[in-house]
Amino acid sequence: MDHTTVGIIGGGPAGLLLARLLHNSGIDCVVLESRDRAYVEQRQRAGILEQSTVDVLRGSGAAERLDREGLVHDGIELRWNRRAQRIDFPALTGGRRVWVYAQTEVVKDLIALQTAGGAPLLFEARVTAVAGADTDRPVVHYTHQGQDKTLSCDYVVGCDGFHGVTRKAIPDGACRTFERVYPYSWFGILADVPPSCDELIYAHSPRGFALHSMRSTTVSRLYLQVANGTDPADWPDERIWDELDARFALDGGWRLERGPITSKAVLPMRSSVTEPMRWGRVFLAGDAAHIVPPTGAKGLNLAVSDVVVLARAFARLQDTGSAELLDAYSDTCLRRVWRAEHFSYFMTTTLHTDPGQSDFETRLQISQLDRIAASPHAAAELAGNYAGLTIE
Amino acid sequence: MDHTTVGIIGGGPAGLLLARLLHNSGIDCVVLESRDRAYVEQRQRAGILEQSTVDVLRGSGAAERLDREGLVHDGIELRWNRRAQRIDFPALTGGRRVWVYAQTEVVKDLIALQTAGGAPLLFEARVTAVAGADTDRPVVHYTHQGQDKTLSCDYVVGCDGFHGVTRKAIPDGACRTFERVYPYSWFGILADVPPSCDELIYAHSPRGFALHSMRSTTVSRLYLQVANGTDPADWPDERIWDELDARFALDGGWRLERGPITSKAVLPMRSSVTEPMRWGRVFLAGDAAHIVPPTGAKGLNLAVSDVVVLARAFARLQDTGSAELLDAYSDTCLRRVWRAEHFSYFMTTTLHTDPGQSDFETRLQISQLDRIAASPHAAAELAGNYAGLTIE
Repeated sequence: MDHTTVGIIGGGPAGLLLARLLHNSGIDCVVLESRDRAYVEQRQRAGILEQSTVDVLRGSGAAERLDREGLVHDGIELRWNRRAQRIDFPALTGGRRVWVYAQTEVVKDLIALQTAGGAPLLFEARVTAVAGADTDRPVVHYTHQGQDKTLSCDYVVGCDGFHGVTRKAIPDGACRTFERVYPYSWFGILADVPPSCDELIYAHSPRGFALHSMRSTTVSRLYLQVANGTDPADWPDERIWDELDARFALDGGWRLERGPITSKAVLPMRSSVTEPMRWGRVFLAGDAAHIVPPTGAKGLNLAVSDVVVLARAFARLQDTGSAELLDAYSDTCLRRVWRAEHFSYFMTTTLHTDPGQSDFETRLQISQLDRIAASPHAAAELAGNYAGLTIE
Repeated sequence: MDHTTVGIIGGGPAGLLLARLLHNSGIDCVVLESRDRAYVEQRQRAGILEQSTVDVLRGSGAAERLDREGLVHDGIELRWNRRAQRIDFPALTGGRRVWVYAQTEVVKDLIALQTAGGAPLLFEARVTAVAGADTDRPVVHYTHQGQDKTLSCDYVVGCDGFHGVTRKAIPDGACRTFERVYPYSWFGILADVPPSCDELIYAHSPRGFALHSMRSTTVSRLYLQVANGTDPADWPDERIWDELDARFALDGGWRLERGPITSKAVLPMRSSVTEPMRWGRVFLAGDAAHIVPPTGAKGLNLAVSDVVVLARAFARLQDTGSAELLDAYSDTCLRRVWRAEHFSYFMTTTLHTDPGQSDFETRLQISQLDRIAASPHAAAELAGNYAGLTIE
């Protein structure tokens, strides 16, 4: 039976960055990823990196391409009632900003580093069971290249998402899950057209929410709030562009550039937190522990802060023998997690139209947005949460 | 038929202050109040005056006793999770504060001034109809001392509350009402015991919201969130004090002083806004135009800002012949009204436990309160809204 100090289940950004951070600290680890490399390097996810996420990637030596190709954003625009308000992040936060750099690119960079001399990273390694979490030698069972394998670990970290094996391996009652499902989804498209403005635009409209974003200087990423269960087949390209035009409309006019749509997908919206983020010697990190709706751009960034806290705790254990930071992992992370959950909920419910929403509630949304435009404190709260807190 | 420039229906704080401001500007007006003087001077209502409300009362010459007897408050305390956080108003708002001085005392002071040489103020004058709002000479029909009377006016102002005659006189479709009823009430008591702390305490607890307030240095005013339809008879004094103790509980301990309870009443909680706050030559002010739940202490203060805007508009009309400010009345007031509606909703939903609330939503409340304690911007937003905006 193979042995490692930290067995990492899942080769998304959380698992890969954790492996990178542990490797940099000289801590032995193995990453088991159920999919093949091509799949992992192509799945579309988030694209906004907080200041502290970029700091971590730089510190870990994984930001070389990010610093070359990432787009620095110094703010976002809010739209409502056919008016616009820019939120200036550095001015409101003492210099913090965000980067547009797709999660899939972060993953490619981390895989390249790992395969070029990092910890072992096994693709198509499908974990079947996690056992012995309550012993000091937990075991991960998996299949790889047609063979059943077993990895013995000092600790196991589940970075395999909400539907992953690790969460499911935790017995009922050991953890508690808090959850909310939203009565709307995002319909996201990729289009081969330069973004129509340099920054993201979050639009509240009587027709529902819309988001103008981008993957690069040549690829636009756009989202529409749609009903749950929406079929992309019901949305020919023309309908999508017309609806986006209607939702981004400004007094004084604004032009959204159109181009070939290369991808259409509907994303459900959920909030979820599992407490504690630990079960014996099994830790949960990233989406395996918590889900946020995408409106606050917090999912990837929370995964990064989780594994930073965890890597530091493993380093402390190695250096001093003290499990103090490891024992504090869940509490340390959950403070930031709940802050992000609240902010994501705030952004979501302020900008989307709930199908059951009263006109009174719509007016409260407008009043909230008016206040963000009028009050530097309200704007600074939004900017500080969006650009992200420092990692504790 | 008697005639006046401005016929004011309702002798609560809105109507009385409007009469005072108009009288000070030399504008002719009459106040018709359906109840007798003793009743009006005793009805228990709000007790927190914003900085700008105090400024207005001082400017109008009605603050002599307020300045002698009012209690200046430089902050409030928030409690949740058995911890406490003070919000320092002057430090967070550039010097703004609030005053504890019961609405019923403001009313007494305004009545005393008016009967000692102000505009006519008729008690037990029951308005039966408002007619001709779409003409330039609206008419108020009322009964007084057993006789039917008619008052012809240039303008009529309804300061007679949500259930008053003026609102009901407006034809369907002329205005639009936005509304929300909350699934809980406040159970308020007055007790002959000095307040247990110098400031107000807003407490979030798993058992529901509680508020520690005061009417004076010898009278405590305390509130408990209760279910709608609660009967005060089900709450013997001992049960009230025990429940208050449980909801205000702090790690490290805290003692709520008990004393004889002299009043018990259940108050429903509602938000409501009528738009526009005008129908022809009939204007709505205060509770006749909008209701807020009491959590943000905004009801009386909104009534004051309404009549300040209105009195200024009538003065402009008298001085220059221009109806510009009068025509802008509704829009001017509604900006502040919606801000106050949002703030009152925010305070209410952050601090109360909705009977249908999920554990996820409770954690969001905790995260919001934690954030107010941690972020100066979040605290300043609360302080700025609570101590009140300047009047436009």
